[in-house]
Amino acid sequence: MSTRFLAGAGLAFGALSIPAAQQPAPIRGFSADQARIQRDWEAKFKAIPSPDSLRSYHRVLAARPQHLGSPYGRQNAEWMVETIKRWGLDAKIETFEVLFPTPRERLLEMVGPTRFVARLKEGVVAGDRSSAQTAEQLPSYNAYSIDGDVTGPLVFVNYGVPADYEELERRGISVKGAIVIAKYGGSWRGIKPKVAAEHGAIGCLIYSDPADDGYGPGDTYPKGPYRPADGVQRGSVADMPLYAGDPSTPNVGAVPGTVGLPLDRIETLTKIPVLPISYGDAQPLLAALGGEAVPPAWRGGLPLTYKTGPGPARVRLKLAFDWNRVPLHNVIVRIPGAELPDEWIVRGNHRDGWANGAVDPLSGIIAEMEELRGLAALLSQGWRPRRTLIYAAWDGEEQGLLGSTEWVETHRDELRAKTVMYLNTDSNTRGYLSMGGSHSLERFINQVAREITDPETGLTAWRRLQLRTIADGSASSRAEARTRGDLRISALGSGSDFTPFLQHAGIAALNLSFGGEGDNGIYHSIYDNLEQYGRFNDSSYVYGRALAQTVGVALMRLANAPVLPFHFVGMADTYAGYLDELKALAATSRDQAIEINRQIDEGVFQAINDPWSPRRAPARREVPPFLNLAPLDNAIAQLRQSADRFEAALRTANTGTVATAANATLRRVEQALASDQGLPRRSWYRHLVYAPGFYTGYGVKTMPGVREAIEQGYWKEAEAEAVRLAEHLGRAASLIDQAAGQLPR
Amino acid sequence: MSTRFLAGAGLAFGALSIPAAQQPAPIRGFSADQARIQRDWEAKFKAIPSPDSLRSYHRVLAARPQHLGSPYGRQNAEWMVETIKRWGLDAKIETFEVLFPTPRERLLEMVGPTRFVARLKEGVVAGDRSSAQTAEQLPSYNAYSIDGDVTGPLVFVNYGVPADYEELERRGISVKGAIVIAKYGGSWRGIKPKVAAEHGAIGCLIYSDPADDGYGPGDTYPKGPYRPADGVQRGSVADMPLYAGDPSTPNVGAVPGTVGLPLDRIETLTKIPVLPISYGDAQPLLAALGGEAVPPAWRGGLPLTYKTGPGPARVRLKLAFDWNRVPLHNVIVRIPGAELPDEWIVRGNHRDGWANGAVDPLSGIIAEMEELRGLAALLSQGWRPRRTLIYAAWDGEEQGLLGSTEWVETHRDELRAKTVMYLNTDSNTRGYLSMGGSHSLERFINQVAREITDPETGLTAWRRLQLRTIADGSASSRAEARTRGDLRISALGSGSDFTPFLQHAGIAALNLSFGGEGDNGIYHSIYDNLEQYGRFNDSSYVYGRALAQTVGVALMRLANAPVLPFHFVGMADTYAGYLDELKALAATSRDQAIEINRQIDEGVFQAINDPWSPRRAPARREVPPFLNLAPLDNAIAQLRQSADRFEAALRTANTGTVATAANATLRRVEQALASDQGLPRRSWYRHLVYAPGFYTGYGVKTMPGVREAIEQGYWKEAEAEAVRLAEHLGRAASLIDQAAGQLPR
Repeated sequence: MSTRFLAGAGLAFGALSIPAAQQPAPIRGFSADQARIQRDWEAKFKAIPSPDSLRSYHRVLAARPQHLGSPYGRQNAEWMVETIKRWGLDAKIETFEVLFPTPRERLLEMVGPTRFVARLKEGVVAGDRSSAQTAEQLPSYNAYSIDGDVTGPLVFVNYGVPADYEELERRGISVKGAIVIAKYGGSWRGIKPKVAAEHGAIGCLIYSDPADDGYGPGDTYPKGPYRPADGVQRGSVADMPLYAGDPSTPNVGAVPGTVGLPLDRIETLTKIPVLPISYGDAQPLLAALGGEAVPPAWRGGLPLTYKTGPGPARVRLKLAFDWNRVPLHNVIVRIPGAELPDEWIVRGNHRDGWANGAVDPLSGIIAEMEELRGLAALLSQGWRPRRTLIYAAWDGEEQGLLGSTEWVETHRDELRAKTVMYLNTDSNTRGYLSMGGSHSLERFINQVAREITDPETGLTAWRRLQLRTIADGSASSRAEARTRGDLRISALGSGSDFTPFLQHAGIAALNLSFGGEGDNGIYHSIYDNLEQYGRFNDSSYVYGRALAQTVGVALMRLANAPVLPFHFVGMADTYAGYLDELKALAATSRDQAIEINRQIDEGVFQAINDPWSPRRAPARREVPPFLNLAPLDNAIAQLRQSADRFEAALRTANTGTVATAANATLRRVEQALASDQGLPRRSWYRHLVYAPGFYTGYGVKTMPGVREAIEQGYWKEAEAEAVRLAEHLGRAASLIDQAAGQLPR
Repeated sequence: MSTRFLAGAGLAFGALSIPAAQQPAPIRGFSADQARIQRDWEAKFKAIPSPDSLRSYHRVLAARPQHLGSPYGRQNAEWMVETIKRWGLDAKIETFEVLFPTPRERLLEMVGPTRFVARLKEGVVAGDRSSAQTAEQLPSYNAYSIDGDVTGPLVFVNYGVPADYEELERRGISVKGAIVIAKYGGSWRGIKPKVAAEHGAIGCLIYSDPADDGYGPGDTYPKGPYRPADGVQRGSVADMPLYAGDPSTPNVGAVPGTVGLPLDRIETLTKIPVLPISYGDAQPLLAALGGEAVPPAWRGGLPLTYKTGPGPARVRLKLAFDWNRVPLHNVIVRIPGAELPDEWIVRGNHRDGWANGAVDPLSGIIAEMEELRGLAALLSQGWRPRRTLIYAAWDGEEQGLLGSTEWVETHRDELRAKTVMYLNTDSNTRGYLSMGGSHSLERFINQVAREITDPETGLTAWRRLQLRTIADGSASSRAEARTRGDLRISALGSGSDFTPFLQHAGIAALNLSFGGEGDNGIYHSIYDNLEQYGRFNDSSYVYGRALAQTVGVALMRLANAPVLPFHFVGMADTYAGYLDELKALAATSRDQAIEINRQIDEGVFQAINDPWSPRRAPARREVPPFLNLAPLDNAIAQLRQSADRFEAALRTANTGTVATAANATLRRVEQALASDQGLPRRSWYRHLVYAPGFYTGYGVKTMPGVREAIEQGYWKEAEAEAVRLAEHLGRAASLIDQAAGQLPR
């Protein structure tokens, strides 16, 4: 159809979709006949999710604070099990026992030159009853900070990432013996105390600056949706890039009765005490800093001159926690496969929030509930999934993916043997479909996105995302969005429950959500509640419905596809792009080191020194050698060939029959990309293509063994990791070849 | 010498400069013998300027407010004449009479929803006696705003440049009938009311946002050097891109007795009343705006959510001025040429400020005074300039280059016949030598910069600038800074007194200053005074000395060079770069129009519309045709050839003799780039290579006839202007050829 017609109103697209339904697009892994039957069931399914149902679950689940270990959290789990059982499905609670510190004492005071005691309290908002549930709310704190009582000069470190400390170093400022104050943002929060401690700091404050998360982007709550002056972002600061889950039980499931590591042997606790604060509490501290004004990019939105310090402000931070083990309740639902019960599709969303959690995570949980109601209805109409569907509502995600991780660690061998893929969701709001995950599932999820109607525009979710990519993209990404067919999905770092599946167990994964409209500032605060949601989020629940439709269709296809819908051509293409990035990174590292050394020799840094504002020259750099990345070139060439061969075989295969042998092989492809040895210095992370960055946290590092070795200047390790990754890519290619040969003819 | 040694202390460079003096670098236009004599005199000259002298002039000239028409301004002119005469030089005052409105009434109030009356007053600062000279200070206002009394809803328009109105248009916001409030910055101030009026606004407020000019960059005065909450930037808002000088006497000198145009026939007065205000006065107005939050790039540093409006804030702006003609006193000093009295080198700096003007302009004027003292001393020792040196201290620059423009308009024919070049300075502070001007003088001023010692580093001013370019530049500009020999000088737009010389009379010009260290926020305020200067500027006057040394050496070379030191190879190279920019601009305009139209056809703007925050699609664009810029390619090829030919001829010429004929021809090269017809729609601007932008103000547009035609979508005009410019470049090339043939053999 001509693109000219696409400029019309939503209605027109509805009309245009009728001919599409008469001549349906193929569904990967299905024969044309099977696809017709499949699409009929999908249409039935898509008609079920309803905003009213979503709202009714939300009203129950978000009624009270429901964090890990809370009475209402347990009550929610029981209510979910009862409700799901009432729909005729098999649901149960699976309990673990995990380490969960809660504050006994929190004190932050400025002891000089003037005195100030931080309030450390989010205020009750008139007309917001949830905010008044103070008896059940956790105070604002960072979980897995160590206990401590420290006093020292304050230093402002911007976002507290390594580059910020380089800037301080140029200014001759050390944080040794100091308490640092960092803005939220620029990295995952747990990176800030880690990097601060590496540089000798004795304490760490993290605050939400109003430029990033407050009155800068818009009116603050309750007038608007943004973070008010006393709003605080809670959150875990365990060193999650080392391993996820209960810090006291790395690699093993914290089943009830497990004795965890003693505190002093837990590597992922912070090395220094850490406390998150509001910008209301941060303002007097920042205003009391001396020293030079910060670089322009470091400035925030408070009405003061941001300065680095150190001091004259001196600050005392005292934190003491109750280090209890608490019960963790995952809700697990199983819809057994009719033909292939030992092939599992796992789908999860966490159910615990930091307080009421209306957005995070319940906006995703209510879609999950609605999917289950829909699937139960289909079962009653005679639909049968070939494969087993396992639904999970994880507890303890906020503390560091505890519920999902302990479950995966407990069932690791069975999961690796049986699981086809894991599909995750989390917070959901208005806007665009966001698709991240294993690139072997890129084609699959693109096909699903073409079946879903965006509630605001009437376009398909796929089309709306395509047009946004065209609107926002560079010339090359615009061209690609117009011509590539599949929109690119993003690689996964961390920040939600896909991590133990993908990066620890090596199971292919997807992470889906709607979002991009309706930003707000209630993340991890007591204002993430129904009152705020009803005014500023998906208040009509139409994006909750869209998410349930998207995931439901995806799972129904995965459950019943005769040939599992993995596709490797795009994956090889994406991996080739990562290799290009690694080459560019190596070249840039080399060029930069040579350039900086040359500038040191030329006297550039003496020449540009302003005696009124002196700066040290940077340290001379080691010039990286040229690296041998040829093993990766060869491996990716092989992967491309295998991917093409598989497509050719699939074109002539008999997709009317379940390809049991080929499917068994296909399930092993992603696992071939994981190594039993794991990544250097963090063996829990086993996937060699996707990992959260050691110094970014949630942010992904693709081909992390090679990439981070180059970034950190470990040249031999970079080459060794290239060899290791190439070997695993080669194994994946061989499995793809093998699967091609096993397809039914 | 090895670059390795350049990393050492300043002392080392002093030592290393001795061998350089034994084997002096050639001086362009001088034979080796003449260069030796020249350098001896230059060394004598450079030893003269002294910080103490500079400080003593400064104490006199900045003692009281000394704006155009003020008693102290007149007193300063007389003191300068007396002082310079005492040195034995010929100095006099040349008086004009110019239109200069001063406020009779200024009222800014918010009339709803709440009431607020703006203070419109800069406060007296304890310990700063100058700030207390309130009886002599002009109030804060914008000169050449029209009278008016308007009331309307307020709209925030960011910097108030055309792109900002496009954004408002996308949001469905019109400023018709509204009063706009714009931040200072992003364009010259006079552009803001011009563009606002073009869009139908009835009034315009301009304020200094603290993120750009206040506590954002550093502590405010008096604690630090930055603009305090009640600080206001005064300044002219006449439509200077149409013509400079007295608005009532375009093209003619406003000699005493001139009857100017009546107010209603002056094109450069604003169309709507305009008032500059402080961020203290702006804050309640901005806080009272409703509507959506602004785009992130529009936000400032006040502790509020920046919103566009319109309203609910309603504002009344009432302005009434005394439209007087006042006397304007230029100080003119003449040092007659001993051999070539009718070849003039003109050098100027304005002497009027908005209040005491310690930085702007007196930091430059005191260097000019010190140059004159130095030249007078050399004359007494027997030095004789071949050519005539004319020194000017301009009055009325702040109102729109009035003193220089009326002088140039009065003496235009004689100046065009006799002047070799004009050298301008203005505010001066610590840091790097900044060099702008005609590219035929690039080689010349690079040679001068290699003779000047930077006071802070002991490097030459040239070397320090080179190393800063290496530190800050892109890979390509770094490579160029290392290998090209000459550092690139910038093209001149406007904002100081070179404009009437270069852009109206077509006389080659240079603009020099030191700066880049010691930013501050006292521009055009009462705090630009000796108290502030002594704490936060060139308080030891070593950069004042460096400026006097730089300009003195430059003038002495220009005065005595046997062959005028124009050089055209770099000029052709730079112009070729401008042509590349024009081609890229044309291609980008084309690509963007095609892309936007395509996105409209695809329905992109409906797809990305958030119904909670709606945006209109942009208007369909006319797709530019491919433009014929080949005439410019040919002309620049010819210019390159001529430039090379001239260099070849110069290498074998006899530079021991004054090249009178060749010099006469060389003087006409820059003038060949000016057209009697001037630029389209602004005939006062006659230079076809350099002009202030019609929509940027001070910011330069090179090859403006072609460039602005492309920017505005006048395709036929762009091609016609290319032909016209090519013709003038051809004339310049022919003159260069002719001069090559006239060089003494």
